[in-house]
Amino acid sequence: PPGRKVLIVYAHQEPKSFNGSLKNVAVEELSKQGCSVMVSDLYAMQFEPRATRSDIVGCLHNPEQFNYSVETWEAYKRGSLSSDLVEEHKKVQEADLLIFQFPLYWFSMPAIMKGWMDRVLVQGFAHEFPNCYDSGLLKNKLGLFSFTTGGSKEMYTKESINGDIRYLLWPMQHGIMHFCGVKVLAPHICFAPEHVSEEKRKEMLTAWAQRLKTLWKEEPINCSSEWYFK
Amino acid sequence: PPGRKVLIVYAHQEPKSFNGSLKNVAVEELSKQGCSVMVSDLYAMQFEPRATRSDIVGCLHNPEQFNYSVETWEAYKRGSLSSDLVEEHKKVQEADLLIFQFPLYWFSMPAIMKGWMDRVLVQGFAHEFPNCYDSGLLKNKLGLFSFTTGGSKEMYTKESINGDIRYLLWPMQHGIMHFCGVKVLAPHICFAPEHVSEEKRKEMLTAWAQRLKTLWKEEPINCSSEWYFK
Repeated sequence: PPGRKVLIVYAHQEPKSFNGSLKNVAVEELSKQGCSVMVSDLYAMQFEPRATRSDIVGCLHNPEQFNYSVETWEAYKRGSLSSDLVEEHKKVQEADLLIFQFPLYWFSMPAIMKGWMDRVLVQGFAHEFPNCYDSGLLKNKLGLFSFTTGGSKEMYTKESINGDIRYLLWPMQHGIMHFCGVKVLAPHICFAPEHVSEEKRKEMLTAWAQRLKTLWKEEPINCSSEWYFK
Repeated sequence: PPGRKVLIVYAHQEPKSFNGSLKNVAVEELSKQGCSVMVSDLYAMQFEPRATRSDIVGCLHNPEQFNYSVETWEAYKRGSLSSDLVEEHKKVQEADLLIFQFPLYWFSMPAIMKGWMDRVLVQGFAHEFPNCYDSGLLKNKLGLFSFTTGGSKEMYTKESINGDIRYLLWPMQHGIMHFCGVKVLAPHICFAPEHVSEEKRKEMLTAWAQRLKTLWKEEPINCSSEWYFK
């Protein structure tokens, strides 16, 4: 609906890729609804995935022994995180909905996107004990993982060697998003777009646009172990 | 035993950290056994986690539309992967055992180590359909995930909000290592070293050294969904 803000965190090297098209479809459809859409195009930004001392501007809390989570927490509180993190914080803070668009790499997200999680979701900003899970600091936001796979749908069932696709969603949806209080919408999965016809790929893009039309009416999933492993 | 080769892939920014000590203990104990030990110290190497066009030297197979997995597969076959990947391939090829040493970040490995997986385990080198899972190209190697957590052991049970620690091992042990044919040894987990006494930390280091003494007699786990979710 008009006024809603969306951040799309997007990780693909090639604008002409199917992931690029899924991202474009989302920008287009959500803009058409009157949403304001921000995109973090991680490869285009050459986003830094490594969690290092460079994320803290100026002096360290304890220069004798570098502890990344302590140092970034302290730096967040005194406003001395590196500018790329401050930029991402602004976008996340504004957003009502976070969409993560990526190709599945090794049962997970590409390293460049994992680096976004590792570096952006700083203690103090995204969580701060006891404010985690349902009381995480990003509560009142929605999150959605939209990704493509190499294997077909049949290859990701309980009985197949890859196991149920939900098994691999646990660390991402529950361990990251739910931990920060984000309410998780059902994932959007395009299975094996490289192995289907051009026509089928177009249908997949249309289906994504269709889903986005009624996305704001969706209820979040019940993000507990039952959803993943029962 | 003498002659065995081990590669430790290590991801911590601080040599004086507990992860650094665990890495040192492993180097020391395995060397004492007569093993030859290689270490990929990812932060010290400033290892690149991003999967980009730079991983391919010279011309692309299809410069019109960049496809990372196709391009790296082709580049592997014609010997034109970037030199950092060639270096890692040599180490992996030589190794009988791969140890991954890291602090758990967001129910998974730090982005810099995920980047090692994304970039080093190239098709053609680590797997090549139908050579995956038990017939993956790295069969005859052993793999072991050794990591530290922020939370205590009691916080990672089926009944607790974090769920069983094994749930989060699925993408790493099964989705990556097993997929490449690597036989997975039981993980070595040090729970919450930052929240225990100096004495308890020393015990943890000793326990790791002890385990390594008889590591070569261990049987791999039965890396199927039962191990993780039953």
